[in-house]
Amino acid sequence: MYELTLIGIGTGNPDHVTYQGAQAIRAADLILIPRKGENKADLAGVREDIISHVTETPPKIAYFDIPKRRADDGYLRGVDEWHDAIALCWQEAIADYPDAQRVALLIWGDPSLYDSSLRIAARLDPQPRKKVIPGITALQALTASHAIPINDIGAPYIVTTGRRLRDEGWPDVASTVAVMLDGECSFQSLPMADYEIWWGAYVGMKEEILIRGPLADVAQDIIQTRALARSDHGWIMDIYLLKKRGN
Amino acid sequence: MYELTLIGIGTGNPDHVTYQGAQAIRAADLILIPRKGENKADLAGVREDIISHVTETPPKIAYFDIPKRRADDGYLRGVDEWHDAIALCWQEAIADYPDAQRVALLIWGDPSLYDSSLRIAARLDPQPRKKVIPGITALQALTASHAIPINDIGAPYIVTTGRRLRDEGWPDVASTVAVMLDGECSFQSLPMADYEIWWGAYVGMKEEILIRGPLADVAQDIIQTRALARSDHGWIMDIYLLKKRGN
Ligand SMILES: C[S@@+](CC[C@H](N)C(=O)[O-])C[C@H]1O[C@@H](n2cnc3c(N)ncnc32)[C@H](O)[C@@H]1O
Ligand SMILES: C[S@@+](CC[C@H](N)C(=O)[O-])C[C@H]1O[C@@H](n2cnc3c(N)ncnc32)[C@H](O)[C@@H]1O
Repeated sequence: MYELTLIGIGTGNPDHVTYQGAQAIRAADLILIPRKGENKADLAGVREDIISHVTETPPKIAYFDIPKRRADDGYLRGVDEWHDAIALCWQEAIADYPDAQRVALLIWGDPSLYDSSLRIAARLDPQPRKKVIPGITALQALTASHAIPINDIGAPYIVTTGRRLRDEGWPDVASTVAVMLDGECSFQSLPMADYEIWWGAYVGMKEEILIRGPLADVAQDIIQTRALARSDHGWIMDIYLLKKRGN
Repeated sequence: MYELTLIGIGTGNPDHVTYQGAQAIRAADLILIPRKGENKADLAGVREDIISHVTETPPKIAYFDIPKRRADDGYLRGVDEWHDAIALCWQEAIADYPDAQRVALLIWGDPSLYDSSLRIAARLDPQPRKKVIPGITALQALTASHAIPINDIGAPYIVTTGRRLRDEGWPDVASTVAVMLDGECSFQSLPMADYEIWWGAYVGMKEEILIRGPLADVAQDIIQTRALARSDHGWIMDIYLLKKRGN
């Protein structure tokens, strides 16, 4: 039985890596690295940089290709099949190294947050022992760059997706909502005069862009900046915090 | 004008510190450290350990006493006055080192999450330039130790306090609720048969205790374990995740 460690690496700044994460990289016999993915977070380069950032004697590396996702089925069904397919890829890559006792994956941000690695790992057969090492999330990189707290004093906050914000509107239970996985600037679906936004793209990275202000004032700026940055870089990841005004 | 950096240090495991955090510690001229506080997170020892963990030539350290909080006023009014008082303490400690250009504070977990440092810093006069370095939160330490994702696939989650959970009950908008700042095992106020819990005390630390299971089955165990650990150690910090069963 081998051990599989999911190491949170932060959001693109190699210095987001923790001492614990660095130790786990150095202790690994084998690191699995994805080769072709849909965006920067999936790319091998970032991960290779982090490995050489923390050790001069890198462990063995096994590359695997992230399979394409079938978009034709229902959303959850599609996700399930996709996770099965990725688990197979991991399994094949690991099978080439039967002596590897400590296998690791470098996970963008934190492995607990909108990430499927734990669900994919649960499909491996035989089941390895699993270990998780937390990493800086995009949400923390966002609040750090804006130098703001996420919550109001003693108040709750919600983390959700662009799709949910569009479908369900503002969740009344919280004064603060963080939105991830939003390809469509879904804040436009809200009555914009009521909110303040703290937006960031490529947070923590050298490409970082930040915009903040009353949503009605800055929404157009965000939409245009996002479209431009996306076409410049060929990919974009963005995230934002919304607060009800006058709280 | 000096620069004030709030450095997230994680939740008691010195290896939670990030490379970015370590660099900021080494780059500081002066680090402010609280001397007497209410719990372990406020103690000087943890912070001194982290400093010597990342550098052999520690920067100057200025100690300050966290003033007592007046509990007799309204909750928010009490907090406001308390923050004013802490800001004065910081200011006095910094005034002793007029040459310090880079002042830092080591913040438990992440400076954005249920932490008042940013609000205290906003009271400083003159205003320093502020910088925030994200750190591993108790929530991430919890999900890492249990090796679980925080969210269901594509679903939102809420982070709240024990008080809010008691006062407002289960927030229907989410299938997952994380509870912090709960001195009273407030999960007891829910219809316990409906939930699953992942609980942790001292998460990330060597004293760590984890309990998980159907809430109705493990609630008593958590309550007793918590009381015992608290009297053994003289302090406790705990946190938990609740999910609706059958999701
Ligand atoms: C699949 S989720 C992974 C989240 C990751 N596990 C974390 O802890 O941040 C991807 C989403 O995270 C956000 N994200 C990740 N990295 C980001 C970055 N550097 N800047 C802005 N948003 C980012 C975006 O909202 C993106 O749609
Ligand atoms: C004032 S808040 C500070 C949170 C911190 N800024 C963070 O990012 O985790 C204190 C609360 O955090 C949680 N907490 C902090 N450290 C913890 C630990 N090591 N184990 C369990 N809970 C912890 C507890 O719920 C505690 O009541």
